[in-house]
Amino acid sequence: MKEDPEPLRAPKGLAGVSVADTRISKSGADGSLIYRGYPISEIANNAGFEETAYLILRGRLPSKGELEPFSAALTAKSRVEEEVFTLMRGLGRDADPIDAIRTAVSSLGSIDREPTREEQEASLESKMSVIAANSLRVPKGEAPRKPKAGLRFSDNLLQMLTTKVASDYERWVFERVLILYMEHDMNASSFTVRVVASTLADPYAAAAAGLASLKGPLHGGANEAAMRMFLEIGDPERAPQFLANAFRDGKKVMGFGHRVYKEFDPRARLCKEYLRELLKRRGGDDRLYRLADTLEKEMWEKKRIPPNLDYYAAPIFYELGIEVPLYTPIFAASRVFGWMAHYDEQLVDNKLIRPDSVYVGPMGLKYKRMEDR
Amino acid sequence: MKEDPEPLRAPKGLAGVSVADTRISKSGADGSLIYRGYPISEIANNAGFEETAYLILRGRLPSKGELEPFSAALTAKSRVEEEVFTLMRGLGRDADPIDAIRTAVSSLGSIDREPTREEQEASLESKMSVIAANSLRVPKGEAPRKPKAGLRFSDNLLQMLTTKVASDYERWVFERVLILYMEHDMNASSFTVRVVASTLADPYAAAAAGLASLKGPLHGGANEAAMRMFLEIGDPERAPQFLANAFRDGKKVMGFGHRVYKEFDPRARLCKEYLRELLKRRGGDDRLYRLADTLEKEMWEKKRIPPNLDYYAAPIFYELGIEVPLYTPIFAASRVFGWMAHYDEQLVDNKLIRPDSVYVGPMGLKYKRMEDR
Repeated sequence: MKEDPEPLRAPKGLAGVSVADTRISKSGADGSLIYRGYPISEIANNAGFEETAYLILRGRLPSKGELEPFSAALTAKSRVEEEVFTLMRGLGRDADPIDAIRTAVSSLGSIDREPTREEQEASLESKMSVIAANSLRVPKGEAPRKPKAGLRFSDNLLQMLTTKVASDYERWVFERVLILYMEHDMNASSFTVRVVASTLADPYAAAAAGLASLKGPLHGGANEAAMRMFLEIGDPERAPQFLANAFRDGKKVMGFGHRVYKEFDPRARLCKEYLRELLKRRGGDDRLYRLADTLEKEMWEKKRIPPNLDYYAAPIFYELGIEVPLYTPIFAASRVFGWMAHYDEQLVDNKLIRPDSVYVGPMGLKYKRMEDR
Repeated sequence: MKEDPEPLRAPKGLAGVSVADTRISKSGADGSLIYRGYPISEIANNAGFEETAYLILRGRLPSKGELEPFSAALTAKSRVEEEVFTLMRGLGRDADPIDAIRTAVSSLGSIDREPTREEQEASLESKMSVIAANSLRVPKGEAPRKPKAGLRFSDNLLQMLTTKVASDYERWVFERVLILYMEHDMNASSFTVRVVASTLADPYAAAAAGLASLKGPLHGGANEAAMRMFLEIGDPERAPQFLANAFRDGKKVMGFGHRVYKEFDPRARLCKEYLRELLKRRGGDDRLYRLADTLEKEMWEKKRIPPNLDYYAAPIFYELGIEVPLYTPIFAASRVFGWMAHYDEQLVDNKLIRPDSVYVGPMGLKYKRMEDR
């Protein structure tokens, strides 16, 4: 008779438990973030989106000869089949955009007929941005906005998200935010992707599962919630009172705190700078910056909790004229590159992720007929 | 400056790592399986499907007064919206049934308008069986088969799966197999469901992720693969040669082995008995039983690996006249009850499942312009 080995009891939420050795990225409690060996500021301030995607997926920065076909494949595969838009329309005008993206990506598993895993991944990465940009309008019955030939990835996504014409600096900033959203070690959705990848499911299935985990407010939706909070507060002078009320009522203040970063989120710092500069260059209303800055300082003084990426990404999206329900879809359109890097890494030396549990219920019960219970 | 705590390195695949205390079920290396305190044979040989679903979901066997509204709710919510079938048709006639189910379930997240989590779960459990039964025919453009009023859950599922009229014993056996597929502690899809549940995503998102993990051949599809193997072998007398060839060519023999069970899978033993009795009562051809039995004995003699549930469930489905690509959909239609039990249990005392990783890549790289690389 085989004995069951005593299982190792993991801390709740697998906090502090390493489930993989990774070469993709690393966040640290000290406010550091590394993408494939590069401190995040090196990449965010200098690299293009496609260049960063290549880095995250392939492990090193591309040469010009490597980047061109990579970028061309992203553009070439971006045509989303009409069936997919039809299916998104079928969800109805009140559909949640994340539901729409998840359902559309799920459908690609059968609709997309790419022959190899690499082509499936490129197709998925490419189509995700088109699906995400249309995740609010298509369910409402509006015509899908399509990618335009000759535009770079982030410019293309931005022109599908809003008809507002963006300045060079605004387009540059949008690309920075996308880069900052691309990858973040073993976050909940990337872990979900790895769990599904470990069954040897295809990239569409894995991405659909990643999107499923983004539906939960503990992982997705935070940038939208932060923006709604800013809009509710409205005036920087009202920030201290808002915070005092939130503490009094035990309400969560959106956009603060992170499982890893305890002092500062380096991505938030970068975005804060971009937001400040964006509004300065425009020369107009900088109220949103002052509001976020005031609230951040108050929060630090009272609770010693720093803002996260979502907190400063949200006002940037707002100032670019993007509708609030599209903020999490944008996150997804960028993070899918990180997901695919995790998918690939999981398969390099795969073993089915199948944990154990400790049974703490009753034992040895006897079935009784319903009449005798 | 905060220091990063040293992460605990988990064994690969989280093998032997308990991620939760559970009261739902427990499988043991000695061939034991407990459903909420009851040895599996107590339940499989005596209880009805709805009764078992109630047990798995609510923690104890129902009284008559509890079972009736539970069963009635399952029937009442089984009407799948036409939009969902339209969307399944949009996947095209070659759609993979698991893709079709995943996409349909994903769409319910926005199409279903149930007000409470409990009603969402009941609706999902109920509609899954209709969606699963139609996952092969509807993408091909055939009319959906609908549930019939007044039938029990398993009879309803069976009449949607095949037009062959089943005897009382055949219907009883089909219900047993469903019960045996319902729940199996921390298997890959149930763990996926828990990871997604931990983000506080809704039941549809969690089930879509569970279905995503079933797409992988290391978790789903094994009953279909086993059946194809039986059909390939054909004659019991060819089993030893088939096995010898498989060993020689290093090919995987389908339907054998399990992460937990090393001596026998109690569900396989029960199904083997049901299959034998089914064919005996019919009095006709028992070749499929003899084939499975011969191959099992050869495999045990040569490799000491026992067959699993999929191995004996497959020939039962075949003898009931169900098309092979529907075997994994049947698994899903039953397992969704287990998934929802895990979803509920995860939320009782939830913490976001967000593990860590150990970064083993390079550090401190400097960005160089493309021209200088």
